[in-house]
Amino acid sequence: MLINGDSGTTISAFDRGLQYGDGLFETIAVADAHPCLWQRHYQRLQAGGKRLGISIPTAATMIKEIQQEIGFNDRGVIKVIVTRGKASRGYQPDPEIPVTRAVHFSPWPSFPASTNSDGVSVRLCNTRLGSNRALAGIKHLNRLEQVLARSEWDDPGISEGLMLDANNRVIEGTMSNIFMFKDGNMHTPDLTECGVEGVMRNLVLEVAAELGRPVNIGQIELPELLAADTVFLTNSLIGIWPVRDIDGKPFNLDHIDRDLMLEVNDRAYV
Amino acid sequence: MLINGDSGTTISAFDRGLQYGDGLFETIAVADAHPCLWQRHYQRLQAGGKRLGISIPTAATMIKEIQQEIGFNDRGVIKVIVTRGKASRGYQPDPEIPVTRAVHFSPWPSFPASTNSDGVSVRLCNTRLGSNRALAGIKHLNRLEQVLARSEWDDPGISEGLMLDANNRVIEGTMSNIFMFKDGNMHTPDLTECGVEGVMRNLVLEVAAELGRPVNIGQIELPELLAADTVFLTNSLIGIWPVRDIDGKPFNLDHIDRDLMLEVNDRAYV
Repeated sequence: MLINGDSGTTISAFDRGLQYGDGLFETIAVADAHPCLWQRHYQRLQAGGKRLGISIPTAATMIKEIQQEIGFNDRGVIKVIVTRGKASRGYQPDPEIPVTRAVHFSPWPSFPASTNSDGVSVRLCNTRLGSNRALAGIKHLNRLEQVLARSEWDDPGISEGLMLDANNRVIEGTMSNIFMFKDGNMHTPDLTECGVEGVMRNLVLEVAAELGRPVNIGQIELPELLAADTVFLTNSLIGIWPVRDIDGKPFNLDHIDRDLMLEVNDRAYV
Repeated sequence: MLINGDSGTTISAFDRGLQYGDGLFETIAVADAHPCLWQRHYQRLQAGGKRLGISIPTAATMIKEIQQEIGFNDRGVIKVIVTRGKASRGYQPDPEIPVTRAVHFSPWPSFPASTNSDGVSVRLCNTRLGSNRALAGIKHLNRLEQVLARSEWDDPGISEGLMLDANNRVIEGTMSNIFMFKDGNMHTPDLTECGVEGVMRNLVLEVAAELGRPVNIGQIELPELLAADTVFLTNSLIGIWPVRDIDGKPFNLDHIDRDLMLEVNDRAYV
């Protein structure tokens, strides 16, 4: 791991990232020894920094450290964390304090190879997502809701948990965004009030529009989702995962939009 | 600082406290070289641990390290952080991983001496508190809402910012709980959906009941608060701060319940 450019595995215990979760992160796929969709990840980091008032290091600084961490590894994952730096006086940010950056390479996770063809099983989580448009969309370090939701099951046969907001609207998975195909149209939840705007979600939105299947972004109630023709999940590492079932309610994998999946995969991991 | 019992100032950058804000903290006043209201703080830490599924170290372990950190200091602040330990496999907690504990002593903060007699100026924050009863009440490390709220002002003449929930209900200050006296009765906001159940808040609730002024816990709208006879703030370090004004709307400090203030202070810092 690189901490502020130096090799290391520790940060100050006074860091606001620990004290308050006061920071942002990105999880980036590595293919051919290079960070996939880097510009999109960097743009989201910048958007988060703007929202929280955290100065994001330059792209040149970040990419240099990312490539150094990747080294001679072809395939894997880069996680980047940027925090508001060391705490000085309670919650109030001190603009004089430099941010902390951590860049870490880890091996590619071992997803089952059958996932893309056979789809994944999904469950509905009891843990809800709180709504706060000041924090919605960005990938910040306050992730207790996801931790609690992911704590709800231990069955390795279940790949993801679905999270609703307090108004019973479908928002996302614990680590992924969700899309559904229903009545001839694609839909994905609006993330103005809660949820993370995934980099892969945005790529899917663009590719779908280019393929002439624009995605409707709006409110999705659980019964609507369960009545969909097909459902799929997205994130930067998994790409697109078709959903085989949600709590036992099956979806027909034959109807999955394979053109979209192929095109997104072609663009996501180059 | 003591990290897991050893002198140090760093934690692993893989710690879930940094990665997800996956942990709890306590801020404890130190008087006469001893942690004030320790049992209450420890009980809240345990309640938070139970809610999040984090094993809190024994009271004996914690108090030993707290006293070691206090050393020969008479007066000051102890901050305790307990996290779920190092990350291993994404959001899912690994019960095999030991928790991380950090105990840090710092000097007593320099609050203006006139605060108790003259009261403090308070402003209304734009940043709202998201509602999630899974996280309400406990003192967890996901504090971005408080950071954003405290970023809204820089005027040292304003001591605290008031936070509402999405339904315009008064919940708390960025670092304090709030009480009001109105129509002959004391009131404080219900914290079932959001907010932190302060140790000092609970002491005030108990003392008030003993003095024959039981506090009504319920929903408080902003106009009700602004029409109150008196308003005060509580936390473990400030004790009770009378509110002089909220965004310029003055309150009559002569009506503050001095008996309650004295009794709470007598019990809080021994």
